[in-house]
Amino acid sequence: MFERLLSPESVAVVGASSKPQKIGYVVLENLKNNGYRGRIYPINPKGGEILGFKVYTSIEEVPEDKIDLTIITLPAEITVDIIEDAAKKSRFIIPIAGGFGETGKEGKEREKKLLEAAKKYGARIIGPNTVGIYIPGTGVNTALVVPERSKFPGDGDIAFITQSGALGLLTMDSVSMYDVGFSAFINLGNRIDVTENELLEFFGRDEKSRVIIMYIESFADGREFMRIARQVSKKKPIVVLKAGRTSRGGKAASLHTGALGGSDAVADGAFKQCGVIRAYDEVELVDYARGLAYGKPIRGERIAVVTSAGGVGVVTTDYIESEIRGIGMRMAELSQETKRRIKEEVVPFASVENPVDMTAQASDDDYDGVLAALNEDPNVDAILVYALFQTPLISEKLVDIITKWHHEGLKPMVVGTIGSEFALEMMKKFERNKVPVYPSIERSVKALKVLYERAKIIDYLEGE
Amino acid sequence: MFERLLSPESVAVVGASSKPQKIGYVVLENLKNNGYRGRIYPINPKGGEILGFKVYTSIEEVPEDKIDLTIITLPAEITVDIIEDAAKKSRFIIPIAGGFGETGKEGKEREKKLLEAAKKYGARIIGPNTVGIYIPGTGVNTALVVPERSKFPGDGDIAFITQSGALGLLTMDSVSMYDVGFSAFINLGNRIDVTENELLEFFGRDEKSRVIIMYIESFADGREFMRIARQVSKKKPIVVLKAGRTSRGGKAASLHTGALGGSDAVADGAFKQCGVIRAYDEVELVDYARGLAYGKPIRGERIAVVTSAGGVGVVTTDYIESEIRGIGMRMAELSQETKRRIKEEVVPFASVENPVDMTAQASDDDYDGVLAALNEDPNVDAILVYALFQTPLISEKLVDIITKWHHEGLKPMVVGTIGSEFALEMMKKFERNKVPVYPSIERSVKALKVLYERAKIIDYLEGE
Repeated sequence: MFERLLSPESVAVVGASSKPQKIGYVVLENLKNNGYRGRIYPINPKGGEILGFKVYTSIEEVPEDKIDLTIITLPAEITVDIIEDAAKKSRFIIPIAGGFGETGKEGKEREKKLLEAAKKYGARIIGPNTVGIYIPGTGVNTALVVPERSKFPGDGDIAFITQSGALGLLTMDSVSMYDVGFSAFINLGNRIDVTENELLEFFGRDEKSRVIIMYIESFADGREFMRIARQVSKKKPIVVLKAGRTSRGGKAASLHTGALGGSDAVADGAFKQCGVIRAYDEVELVDYARGLAYGKPIRGERIAVVTSAGGVGVVTTDYIESEIRGIGMRMAELSQETKRRIKEEVVPFASVENPVDMTAQASDDDYDGVLAALNEDPNVDAILVYALFQTPLISEKLVDIITKWHHEGLKPMVVGTIGSEFALEMMKKFERNKVPVYPSIERSVKALKVLYERAKIIDYLEGE
Repeated sequence: MFERLLSPESVAVVGASSKPQKIGYVVLENLKNNGYRGRIYPINPKGGEILGFKVYTSIEEVPEDKIDLTIITLPAEITVDIIEDAAKKSRFIIPIAGGFGETGKEGKEREKKLLEAAKKYGARIIGPNTVGIYIPGTGVNTALVVPERSKFPGDGDIAFITQSGALGLLTMDSVSMYDVGFSAFINLGNRIDVTENELLEFFGRDEKSRVIIMYIESFADGREFMRIARQVSKKKPIVVLKAGRTSRGGKAASLHTGALGGSDAVADGAFKQCGVIRAYDEVELVDYARGLAYGKPIRGERIAVVTSAGGVGVVTTDYIESEIRGIGMRMAELSQETKRRIKEEVVPFASVENPVDMTAQASDDDYDGVLAALNEDPNVDAILVYALFQTPLISEKLVDIITKWHHEGLKPMVVGTIGSEFALEMMKKFERNKVPVYPSIERSVKALKVLYERAKIIDYLEGE
């Protein structure tokens, strides 16, 4: 039902402007520059032309029965004045402005008017007080940021529902550096009509979205969320960053989005029951999403680690085994056969115990041989392989070798890497190949744990 | 006493080679390209010329009484053959090759020969089985990595002592992305002569080094370490990544460096007693170092948070206040006067409670005014300010404003940022200005905790 929102055939921009610093200009410019292929209707009483588009003086004038998406970039008080006209002509409406419920009684009255108009004509509202939506695949982007100082990600597998627009945009900006892609980004804003629940249900069915991530300060309807999340989790993973988990954080959230959160222990229990994976910050949110979107669930605790840097293997072992500062899983005891095969591959002074340390003498082919052996070892439940590109016998081919084992191997795999510009380029390659890759030891290890949790969730929900 | 090692007036390379893939070539090339200004003596029985340097056919032939630093790039068995000649002519010797104690009995015999020669002539040995040293300030670099695929950091404030060469190089490579600088990098290798203890003592006195970081799998002499660390900690911070903290990690360490670690609880207690701050991975190690090198100790638990993204403020509040997933500190209760002053600065719908949320309407000047107010609030012990560059009214000037408050303000400050390429450029600016900046919420918050720990360490050690 949200297809027309994410992939609108027509978009109206009410409050279109010819001034480049205005949101009513930026939205039009985004539509133009991001390759949006539908019909565009700028609306401004002055008429004329903006960015080559004919400007309509009112929304009634637009020569369509129903516009798929109407974006209102006007202040709250004017938004209220034109909402009835907009609702009459639109399937979806995004009122961008603040100055609604978040500001007090008067704002709440305004929201009531928006909602009445929407109900009357069967239009649906995202927001108000929202940065809106960003849909890489269709080129729709309603967010006002400075393009020279922020980046938008490309098309991908992650659907992102967020109660905080800014946190959402910042998160997407930061992961753009690794070429992480998104299927959709929706900022709920004041959430007077469309809530996270309907969207969750929708993305649960959406084939483009392999994983759903959410930033939430309070649930519109917790029970309903649980019911839907439980269904969706059977098909695809959901990762939730529930902010305001401490009492002071909850207070901050109530000032931010008016959220009234309940006890965090209750939320935690609820998430477990409905198969939701929890993230605690913006980095975990996307890290976990990428792991879950590209990785296989891990059914068992025994991890094999492959590295060319001994110290990295030791720190990784600590993180895997430790309950206190770590994930509390186990290092696999490699079979004799595996050790024998690894010994054939690597230099004499390498370690054939787990962590397998191939030393700085490791070659691309060594990796290939070691991954082949580990993939056949019945004592191994998953593999964490470090792709370290600094040593002489390693080349970019290592990305292809690891990608092959990720997609064709039997065992779930996570990739870690450490480095600067070159490592970043290789991370982008892995990302394009849909291989979960992380730029630090801890982040790599945490991805293992999430894939392990995912397996338990699947078994638990299927067992019902 | 290690001045001649870090800043040698003459360097000999025994095993100098004209083949670019050989370590005996790379070391010479590094000396040439990194601006090393001392005298260089390539040694190779074939003589001739390499990279424009005259090659000496033996070390005896070198026209100096004592060479400050002799790097031996030959295999273990040949290193043993020439060690006496090298020891006779050198103050410091770095035998790079593996094939010593780490390989068994025969290798141990070789080490004995190295040490005997060194003692006999008063030379000191770093290694063997080491990537050696990297001194950005003097251009000495003995590490063999592929320059196109790894970066070396510039000159800076961090002294890095590591038992694992590869982990050390990878860590330096990755933080080069943020232009983090180092005063010295020394890989202990098999540590047959010079240990971490002498180096720690030296860097404790070295004015260039504002903080000392260590990657250690086992201590050469734990008691001695504690004695020295206690002294050094009074003057400057020490951060230690002690790997092999789990029993399985300890086993991996013993295969890696032959480390025989004791109980981790014992290590933890010892660190506390001698004022050592503990890091658990390569990211924390340098994050903490930067915080401690540039930041002021935090004397009190009350943190003020400044943000232009509400959600970032909420997640930060959770991390600050939570004992379970967080640092267990407290959000400051701002004084009425502070709130009044902030209200004058920011837009009407901004939050003047802590976290101070200036919203997407925040300007550079708003930051300036808010930081001025917070710096005078007696209820605030430290400030975490998020520099987010994506919104329209923010410019690069924000870096200067925050830098000013960091250096001139009364309160300790930590800076967080979230973003991609542009944020990275701003991080480099902060780094050059010696402002501790972190690219995520969690990393920013953890830096606060470390500065708080540092204050407690100073008080505790001074109280003795």
